[in-house]
Amino acid sequence: MRVGLLTGGGDVPGLNAAIRAVVKRGEGEHGHSIVGFRNGWRGVVDGDVMPLTRQHIRNVLPVGGTLLGTARYHPKASDGSLDAVMQTLEAERIEALICIGGDGTLHAASKVAEAGVKIVAIPKTIDNDVWGTDRSIGFDTAVTIATEAIDRVHTTAESHNRVMIVEVMGRHAGWIAVTSAIAGGAEVVLTPEEPFDIDKVIRFLKHRHRAHASFSIVVVAEGAVPAEGTSMSYEAPVGKFGEIVAGAIGERVKAEIEQRTGFDTRVTVLGHVQRGGIPTPEDRILGSRFGVAAIDAITRGESGVMTALRGEDVVLTPLTEIAGKVKHVPASLIQVAQALA
Amino acid sequence: MRVGLLTGGGDVPGLNAAIRAVVKRGEGEHGHSIVGFRNGWRGVVDGDVMPLTRQHIRNVLPVGGTLLGTARYHPKASDGSLDAVMQTLEAERIEALICIGGDGTLHAASKVAEAGVKIVAIPKTIDNDVWGTDRSIGFDTAVTIATEAIDRVHTTAESHNRVMIVEVMGRHAGWIAVTSAIAGGAEVVLTPEEPFDIDKVIRFLKHRHRAHASFSIVVVAEGAVPAEGTSMSYEAPVGKFGEIVAGAIGERVKAEIEQRTGFDTRVTVLGHVQRGGIPTPEDRILGSRFGVAAIDAITRGESGVMTALRGEDVVLTPLTEIAGKVKHVPASLIQVAQALA
Amino acid sequence: MRVGLLTGGGDVPGLNAAIRAVVKRGEGEHGHSIVGFRNGWRGVVDGDVMPLTRQHIRNVLPVGGTLLGTARYHPKASDGSLDAVMQTLEAERIEALICIGGDGTLHAASKVAEAGVKIVAIPKTIDNDVWGTDRSIGFDTAVTIATEAIDRVHTTAESHNRVMIVEVMGRHAGWIAVTSAIAGGAEVVLTPEEPFDIDKVIRFLKHRHRAHASFSIVVVAEGAVPAEGTSMSYEAPVGKFGEIVAGAIGERVKAEIEQRTGFDTRVTVLGHVQRGGIPTPEDRILGSRFGVAAIDAITRGESGVMTALRGEDVVLTPLTEIAGKVKHVPASLIQVAQALA
Amino acid sequence: MRVGLLTGGGDVPGLNAAIRAVVKRGEGEHGHSIVGFRNGWRGVVDGDVMPLTRQHIRNVLPVGGTLLGTARYHPKASDGSLDAVMQTLEAERIEALICIGGDGTLHAASKVAEAGVKIVAIPKTIDNDVWGTDRSIGFDTAVTIATEAIDRVHTTAESHNRVMIVEVMGRHAGWIAVTSAIAGGAEVVLTPEEPFDIDKVIRFLKHRHRAHASFSIVVVAEGAVPAEGTSMSYEAPVGKFGEIVAGAIGERVKAEIEQRTGFDTRVTVLGHVQRGGIPTPEDRILGSRFGVAAIDAITRGESGVMTALRGEDVVLTPLTEIAGKVKHVPASLIQVAQALA
Repeated sequence: MRVGLLTGGGDVPGLNAAIRAVVKRGEGEHGHSIVGFRNGWRGVVDGDVMPLTRQHIRNVLPVGGTLLGTARYHPKASDGSLDAVMQTLEAERIEALICIGGDGTLHAASKVAEAGVKIVAIPKTIDNDVWGTDRSIGFDTAVTIATEAIDRVHTTAESHNRVMIVEVMGRHAGWIAVTSAIAGGAEVVLTPEEPFDIDKVIRFLKHRHRAHASFSIVVVAEGAVPAEGTSMSYEAPVGKFGEIVAGAIGERVKAEIEQRTGFDTRVTVLGHVQRGGIPTPEDRILGSRFGVAAIDAITRGESGVMTALRGEDVVLTPLTEIAGKVKHVPASLIQVAQALA
Repeated sequence: MRVGLLTGGGDVPGLNAAIRAVVKRGEGEHGHSIVGFRNGWRGVVDGDVMPLTRQHIRNVLPVGGTLLGTARYHPKASDGSLDAVMQTLEAERIEALICIGGDGTLHAASKVAEAGVKIVAIPKTIDNDVWGTDRSIGFDTAVTIATEAIDRVHTTAESHNRVMIVEVMGRHAGWIAVTSAIAGGAEVVLTPEEPFDIDKVIRFLKHRHRAHASFSIVVVAEGAVPAEGTSMSYEAPVGKFGEIVAGAIGERVKAEIEQRTGFDTRVTVLGHVQRGGIPTPEDRILGSRFGVAAIDAITRGESGVMTALRGEDVVLTPLTEIAGKVKHVPASLIQVAQALA
Repeated sequence: MRVGLLTGGGDVPGLNAAIRAVVKRGEGEHGHSIVGFRNGWRGVVDGDVMPLTRQHIRNVLPVGGTLLGTARYHPKASDGSLDAVMQTLEAERIEALICIGGDGTLHAASKVAEAGVKIVAIPKTIDNDVWGTDRSIGFDTAVTIATEAIDRVHTTAESHNRVMIVEVMGRHAGWIAVTSAIAGGAEVVLTPEEPFDIDKVIRFLKHRHRAHASFSIVVVAEGAVPAEGTSMSYEAPVGKFGEIVAGAIGERVKAEIEQRTGFDTRVTVLGHVQRGGIPTPEDRILGSRFGVAAIDAITRGESGVMTALRGEDVVLTPLTEIAGKVKHVPASLIQVAQALA
Repeated sequence: MRVGLLTGGGDVPGLNAAIRAVVKRGEGEHGHSIVGFRNGWRGVVDGDVMPLTRQHIRNVLPVGGTLLGTARYHPKASDGSLDAVMQTLEAERIEALICIGGDGTLHAASKVAEAGVKIVAIPKTIDNDVWGTDRSIGFDTAVTIATEAIDRVHTTAESHNRVMIVEVMGRHAGWIAVTSAIAGGAEVVLTPEEPFDIDKVIRFLKHRHRAHASFSIVVVAEGAVPAEGTSMSYEAPVGKFGEIVAGAIGERVKAEIEQRTGFDTRVTVLGHVQRGGIPTPEDRILGSRFGVAAIDAITRGESGVMTALRGEDVVLTPLTEIAGKVKHVPASLIQVAQALA
């Protein structure tokens, strides 16, 4: 069996573990040929392929990024690129496709599956907001990096009596923000899930600094927004790729805090470092388990499904059920962050 | 309300996060007084107490170990120490007790609860073998340390064409062994769950080194044993604290491999480094969530229960249901390790 | 003997090692009393003191920041604050003072020494630009953090075919930039020492991407500037504390590259994370050695000197000789970075 | 020019940085062809070569070990292997040779140079005991790993009131022991430089535990020995490769301490993890600088020299001057460790 494999969307640590698992298990146990597409869906449209054998996956477990390359590009019916996908798959005699990606990639996968291609998907996103799975590849490493950064600014905040704002990723969901805030012991966490009231934040900081502390850590998800009707207005600025401009909300919150408290306030925008580097064991294990599950599912003839972690089990869930949904941080977890502030 | 708190058994990273959560939430939200017992059950028997206020838990999140101290000691009815426990609790007017520990501590907690004391327990063990919870505090950090060690010996194994054996903790269950073997890309993993046939291991290594590789990594849980009726006899040597002697199985497997393959074979025994140092974000978050859940449960009047992680939720599970059970590594996870060897 | 101790300027990892060494050696070997001043020279002016005994320095070796607090404030003769310094020292019966700091703190130390106070200084700065010493406390940790960040963006740059710009600290000297560029394998490094020609940078990147690579890493020191007469004009924007605005040169270089090459280009500004967190062994050792050398020098009656690393030795160097000088990165080291680009 | 390159002796982190520098600089600037020999001198004797181009050194900077492989083997005149070396060099038309290694490799290099081959050597050893250079490749990473391990056992020692012994590498010199003891804040450090009196160690520990502490960290170099005429006799057991048996002195010191103090005492033997994994920035920079200096020296026609770090400079030093010498830890550094115990 010839099985295609691609990684799409933003790169995350742990992708290579999934690629390795698909190749090792696919070649070794099932005797498949694995064909890699370079740079996500772009490579499928362009017919940009590379063979994937045991040789290509040596020593990749601890390496971040994706050896296949990736791109934030998704084929559409409207511009003929979906047709190009079908032509490439036919030309390369691909019998089934494994797509590793986030929202956009999975959405495209869903469409290609509808067009009759056998597809199994694997969820990855540092934002951890893919519906239907407890964890997506890349999240644990991102949280580890964000927590380490909070640990770092913690000592500098305390030494200088400052308010330190750390802006982390999370456009639609505040998973990195909430978990790194708990792990790092932040005093305030602002998320897309719960629009904030800057007046409350200011009151809290003033009270804390009056009562017993001379510094504070505020973790802000890039997608955090003030609640309607509160005293701070804000419109998230959008960049040329449609992304929220890095640092926008962090700088805005800093300005408010500094102006209204007089506290020396600084911002750190973590940015790209959150998605790079050595994957944590959890992301390598998750990638490995998802990779094995995906190629096994392909071999059994499954299609239109995504591998998912549920508790301790890896299961399959229909792609149609996850489409258009965002997995938000549960209120119970946000409450833990607030309880320990 | 006066609530006692102790940490028992071997120390693990993440205990301070749990202590901090109990104190912050207990004092702040519920208005309780938290009383710490030093060195586990030992401190309850001896009446060795310390106050625990916000002052004591500053900056402890990233610190390994336990600020309360701990001991591998459990009170017994037979020697009067259980009575001493009851006397101390009365003398200190402790209305409820939170016990953080592994098997032994939880077993003692169960008995003290039977004697009428309100108890909520929190599971910790780097071995991750406490029944009823997906994760125990300390496991994720231990896996991270073990994986880092495998990464390290990987480069040296490859440079020197060696078989490297890494012995990790896990007396009754091979959680650290299996997960770090997957994450580190080990070729062989030996666990208590599946007694091994050294002949098969030897054959596999010979085949691998003949076919395409010049080195191998073998991860061995300290509690791994050869299958009955196979060609290697072995009796785990027991130390003076009843523990398996560190390095015993590792050295034994090394001798077999070296003698029967001629490959240059070395052993690394991770030992105590697995249980120390900076907790990972996951262990800090787990400790924090368990701490909040425990003090909330105490406040609601619950007793005889343990906090547990199930999927994404923290729940309570009766202590009576977990007693005497070991949570083994599921076969599906062991198979992933083997599939990717 | 009563010895005062202060840490001034920006905090860096390794300060606590120096404080610990002064206290341990001062109390233990010499029988001195060590008096800490809070928040640098601010605390001397305000008489804000704290006792420093073995109790205060427990477990501080792996902790970043400074347990004394610090401030970017320096006393002046003109506003009477230098007089306040003398009054506090007299009131507290301080016989000698150890000042740990960078340029500003050392300059102030020099003036206070001239006024008759016995002073020994210890150099710290992540920029490593203090004259007269091979290394200053904090530099090695900053390089380690910057290198780790470059490693991280490396995998993401390669996965996405991007130019990644990493802006690091270094206003007057490019030590962090050059060393992390060598360690991280960056393709371009821009420093204050060698004003750059953006045309050459553009040509190099275009050539590289045409010839054999699809990504590049550019490390920029915050104090890098274009050479006069070249095609890019730039005036470093200055913030309200007199500091160069973080991200300014990084964003400017990004705009040039993106506009003139069309390559997808992103910026990461490391900012405050460079100065926080766990000190590397080298910074702990340097802090420890400097602390011991400083208190020993004080005890011998030395004054007006700074501890300095020269090769493998710690020596003393007159404060007057280092004043007003910047230790630049030697051309030979910059050439190594360029040779390996 | 055809330049041969080999790495010999035990592998250390940072070798790949040196290899990369030789290849990048040799190919790019000088137009040489670089020929790699596999597995150290073994590969020269056997004629086991591989081409080394820019392709082979991609992404190797953060990777431990050596992409050339290595072996603890040295050619001798007596068995004809030195002749085999000369024949291979002629057959491969090697005009000059760069040897990266420790004592043994450098000694062999010296002999081959005497036989008329142009040779430049680069020092590597985690023990840091090569004469004539402040630092050898691999040392900084080993110290970092050892310090991290001490940090880890520190929290567990404190939690359990234990004496923790950490045995580190260092057969003839205690560089890792002394520096990691300072960085980790160990109470006792035992080195080859200063044979120890176990009675003094015991008295110190008893005093400390009586006075104010309930735990201690003892760092022991594998080559530490008791002073003659003191109460502990010990003969270092030697393994089949002539190495000191790992754990021997650690276990022996543990037995003495435990028996004579009654303190719960544990040993951690770091072993192979000290020499593997991601090199620190310092080791990558040192490897890079040495690599550039070596190929530049070869190009200038130098021979019989070794690259060396002296203060901030990389210089060349004659191989004949370093032969048979061990660079010991200076007394001043050992005193810092003792002053801060």
